[in-house]
Amino acid sequence: MIKVILVEPKNQGNIGAIARVMDNFGFKSLAIVNPPELGEEAFKRAVHARDILEKAEICGSFEDAIRGLSYVAGTSSDISESKKNPARNFMVLKEFAEKVKGFSGDVGIAFGREDFGLINKEVALCDSVIYIPTSKDYPSMNLSHACAIVLYELSAGCDLNIEARERASDFEREKFYETFAALLDLIDYKEHKKKKTEAMFKRLTGRAMLTKWEFYTFMGLMKDIEKKLDEKNK
Amino acid sequence: MIKVILVEPKNQGNIGAIARVMDNFGFKSLAIVNPPELGEEAFKRAVHARDILEKAEICGSFEDAIRGLSYVAGTSSDISESKKNPARNFMVLKEFAEKVKGFSGDVGIAFGREDFGLINKEVALCDSVIYIPTSKDYPSMNLSHACAIVLYELSAGCDLNIEARERASDFEREKFYETFAALLDLIDYKEHKKKKTEAMFKRLTGRAMLTKWEFYTFMGLMKDIEKKLDEKNK
Repeated sequence: MIKVILVEPKNQGNIGAIARVMDNFGFKSLAIVNPPELGEEAFKRAVHARDILEKAEICGSFEDAIRGLSYVAGTSSDISESKKNPARNFMVLKEFAEKVKGFSGDVGIAFGREDFGLINKEVALCDSVIYIPTSKDYPSMNLSHACAIVLYELSAGCDLNIEARERASDFEREKFYETFAALLDLIDYKEHKKKKTEAMFKRLTGRAMLTKWEFYTFMGLMKDIEKKLDEKNK
Repeated sequence: MIKVILVEPKNQGNIGAIARVMDNFGFKSLAIVNPPELGEEAFKRAVHARDILEKAEICGSFEDAIRGLSYVAGTSSDISESKKNPARNFMVLKEFAEKVKGFSGDVGIAFGREDFGLINKEVALCDSVIYIPTSKDYPSMNLSHACAIVLYELSAGCDLNIEARERASDFEREKFYETFAALLDLIDYKEHKKKKTEAMFKRLTGRAMLTKWEFYTFMGLMKDIEKKLDEKNK
């Protein structure tokens, strides 16, 4: 299942237009974090997709909206920061769409505010950041256009015969990142580099879309390293 | 050159939104057949793409709009007729985008009216009809969404804004995998699991498409772990 997550959209017309394009591509699950009031304009632009608006999950925070999902991709039109901020390292939409096809878990696609997108705190909660390649001169797209393009690409060529790879769960990934952080401490990793390296690790494994099997293997490996370091301490 | 041709659009907001998304994907040439008056709403939705609206070619007929073009593709959401009407035999958007890449002439992409698209007489003037695969239950897309998706697909792979992320080189990746293998030895990783884990590591980092910067960070990290293990050996 793919869930569209709109984070604090201001324009109800956009929300209606997004419901319509979700329906056009067969996606039904919508969550909205702190929406404006949905009135006539939203329902007018939704046209036949009224039910998607009516059944939208209204959330008080981004954390609420992504709870229980196996994978969350944020969207960003601003990739200029990606060199300085490893959490914003991106994957091009086509690459993401290719990868997401084989997964069986619930995937959230988060779209930020019309004016300034997702904030760093939200991006940090995503497993990856996806990017629609646009013109350098004018990269800022209309919210519902960005959504239309992402959903088009995700639905394109959907091959139901692909055997789903089982994804590591929320909890497992959380543990995975914690174990990595603990390992950094154990080798006295430089404090000022720690946060960046942790973010980079999360992005790298996020881009790779870790399977359960890979999760167990590398979790085991990190534990082995820890044990070895502990042993030598004695 | 690609020219976007809107045939008798009724909603000026749509026209503005289309100008914006044209600009987002670097397309500048717009022709409109019998447009409504373009006022505040159109310019508001065009945001920074005012100039595309101002320079739009206003035509009295579809024939005028396509004059001089080497190739004209019409768009259609209704492919149910294509069996009865060979003029409506369609090409899926992705296929069209693939083909148009090698084309040097001027290409027009025609979008019909919000309510009933292109009429048969117009379709007959097109060289092909392109189709965006949508849900059977609700195929009718918003005009500017259809346009956004077509322009996205036509520009995709044209490397617009992406300053290529610098990839780790062959040589660097080779070193990376060697260092990982050496680390496994250092922690007395079980021999029978070694080959599999190395292969998995390679696949995982391969899927993530390691950047140079990530390469250096994790290479450094593995070396730190090795040093720590060595230290304790003394």
